[in-house]
Amino acid sequence: MYKITEIEGGVCASEGFYADGVSAGLKKNNALDMAFIYSQNECEVASTFTTNKMFAAPIKHFRAKGEFKTNFVLINSKNANAMTGQAGVKDIEEVLEAFSSTCQENLINPLMSSTGVIGVRLPKQKIIKGTKLFDLRARNPKNASEAIMTTDTFSKSIALRVELQNGDCFHIGAMAKGAGMINPAMATMLCFITTDADASKAQMQEILDEVTVHTFNAISVDGDTSTNDTVILMSNAKSKAFDKEAFKEALFKVMHFLALEMVRDGEGATKLVTYKVTGAKDNKEAEVVAKALSDSLLVKTALFGEDPNWGRIASTVGASGVEAYEETLSISFNELCVYHKGELLFNEAMEEKAAAIMKLARFSISCDLGISNGSFTAYGCDLGYEYVKINADYRT
Amino acid sequence: MYKITEIEGGVCASEGFYADGVSAGLKKNNALDMAFIYSQNECEVASTFTTNKMFAAPIKHFRAKGEFKTNFVLINSKNANAMTGQAGVKDIEEVLEAFSSTCQENLINPLMSSTGVIGVRLPKQKIIKGTKLFDLRARNPKNASEAIMTTDTFSKSIALRVELQNGDCFHIGAMAKGAGMINPAMATMLCFITTDADASKAQMQEILDEVTVHTFNAISVDGDTSTNDTVILMSNAKSKAFDKEAFKEALFKVMHFLALEMVRDGEGATKLVTYKVTGAKDNKEAEVVAKALSDSLLVKTALFGEDPNWGRIASTVGASGVEAYEETLSISFNELCVYHKGELLFNEAMEEKAAAIMKLARFSISCDLGISNGSFTAYGCDLGYEYVKINADYRT
Repeated sequence: MYKITEIEGGVCASEGFYADGVSAGLKKNNALDMAFIYSQNECEVASTFTTNKMFAAPIKHFRAKGEFKTNFVLINSKNANAMTGQAGVKDIEEVLEAFSSTCQENLINPLMSSTGVIGVRLPKQKIIKGTKLFDLRARNPKNASEAIMTTDTFSKSIALRVELQNGDCFHIGAMAKGAGMINPAMATMLCFITTDADASKAQMQEILDEVTVHTFNAISVDGDTSTNDTVILMSNAKSKAFDKEAFKEALFKVMHFLALEMVRDGEGATKLVTYKVTGAKDNKEAEVVAKALSDSLLVKTALFGEDPNWGRIASTVGASGVEAYEETLSISFNELCVYHKGELLFNEAMEEKAAAIMKLARFSISCDLGISNGSFTAYGCDLGYEYVKINADYRT
Repeated sequence: MYKITEIEGGVCASEGFYADGVSAGLKKNNALDMAFIYSQNECEVASTFTTNKMFAAPIKHFRAKGEFKTNFVLINSKNANAMTGQAGVKDIEEVLEAFSSTCQENLINPLMSSTGVIGVRLPKQKIIKGTKLFDLRARNPKNASEAIMTTDTFSKSIALRVELQNGDCFHIGAMAKGAGMINPAMATMLCFITTDADASKAQMQEILDEVTVHTFNAISVDGDTSTNDTVILMSNAKSKAFDKEAFKEALFKVMHFLALEMVRDGEGATKLVTYKVTGAKDNKEAEVVAKALSDSLLVKTALFGEDPNWGRIASTVGASGVEAYEETLSISFNELCVYHKGELLFNEAMEEKAAAIMKLARFSISCDLGISNGSFTAYGCDLGYEYVKINADYRT
């Protein structure tokens, strides 16, 4: 038994963690564009990165380290440091060395994480100048979460306090940026999670992998997978407390919340839709269908048009490549079943009801394939004019 | 040796074929909405259909026939007769029987093909009434090609005359409808091809399958695959002439032309882009990359914004799942190489040149993966506000 409570403090809610955001002039109008997370105690690290073969320099830099502990992450927006080759990795090393040599604290295997435009070298001097503004004893998690935003319209963070039955207590705090490119296999999303739980690297990695499948890897904004997707989970063990089940549930809550916040803030998105697929041959096939639905342009535009076009849902199920039959399929909008195993239930009265559901900011579309017990739930948004506008003019 | 010449006449250019379009009141404002193709002589038939598991009633009806010859196809727009179960097949039988029993000509295994909204039963009485307007001795191929349009903004047809060295001559004529949902694995596209070449069913099917891969299956408008995709190729052998190579080349020309017409007329499309992928591990991996590029929302919106954002091209290559390396990849817009094997070539002058290329109505994006000899060429379009508008309001 344990108790999970939402608290203030974002990434600084975990004991011993510091964070802040500063403006290094990467963004216009002195907006915050560089952040750090720092812990005096060194941390065990678990991580998940993009599956994109063109993974960015920060990921190369991380992977080249092998096994390590760290106590510092530097994050910048506006420049992804992707497609920059080994020079991009060297830029990271130079930036981190410059900061290490001037800062008062002892940085252990400092890390860097970047998001922004692909194919442009890091503005090293600006960034080094920016690090001089860092106060490693500052606790401004809100600034940090704002500094990592790109096309996000709001910053995203959460913190939980977990009380165990024996009175022990640990925390998990996190911040993330999403918007655009959010896809089942992650996307230009960065997520930094701090904890003072006394979890080993292996424990954290196992739980992180499990939870990622049903959170960050279950969301889609536009089906593209970026070069920079990163989730970093750092534990400084300061609480000396740990319980695997409690940790897993809390981490799921943190990542699920942030994943849905990302979808809700998808570029131009006005709706958050849950795709519940059941009755598939197996869980894998259910996942394929759920992601096909959340990725389908035709479904997304029908959502934007608030058009209960269940035919597009059926067509997308059929096009997804998994085992599916017209005669066993059922489709519902929230609790309203609009197609049931070959029966055309749709009529004017039902269309009115379905259209009312589609006007909601949040609803679910359920597909029961009627074959076996495979199930998966994915999350997506609509696609409207704003998406096109944002992405047609991204670099300008 | 042979000579291929473009001629007038669409599906009626092949000797012995008749076609027309009429208005049955399915579309508003007395627009043409039903068409037929008829040949006095019975025809061998080759065909390709959607891979969508929810394939529509006309495809079920076709497949239930097994081996057969035919001389008549009825086509309607506005209603796809999809997700209508066995009732949908029975509707087709009733419509075709009603017309057979009243028409003066001898219909042999008549076929039906439909496009439009999914999940609504065929308006049988309207369609039967519409067939009464058919004059099977009419030759109005333009009317026929207009009647099958849905969101198409122009009708699509072509005809070729093929002269063989021995003086023999045969024809291939075709009409198609595309727009929206056009995807690598075909989409709500219908294509009807007539020929008077003396080709056997087996010869036609083999050639049709080969040509489809590099034409209709190499185009993408929005990555969705419809319930109704159909290509039907009918030969009445009236010319008594045939040459395999000449037939294949002519069929390729016909289908390639129509495929590009479909992309050009993709919903809201303003640009036709050729994606040339070379240097992949094999042809299959090159195909995966080419289609990933033509399907990518981020690439499509960058095209619409005329933004030479080569980083998104690189990211999409990396996300496609095939073998690819930053250090061996090269990317060009037309002949302008913007990224070469790890070298960042892009600067302001080059950006200006690249932006000028992107303003063209037609250009190519080439990706050399630099690994081996696999190659594939796909075709796509941009995605702009009009696409969203058309698809948000499709049913209204």
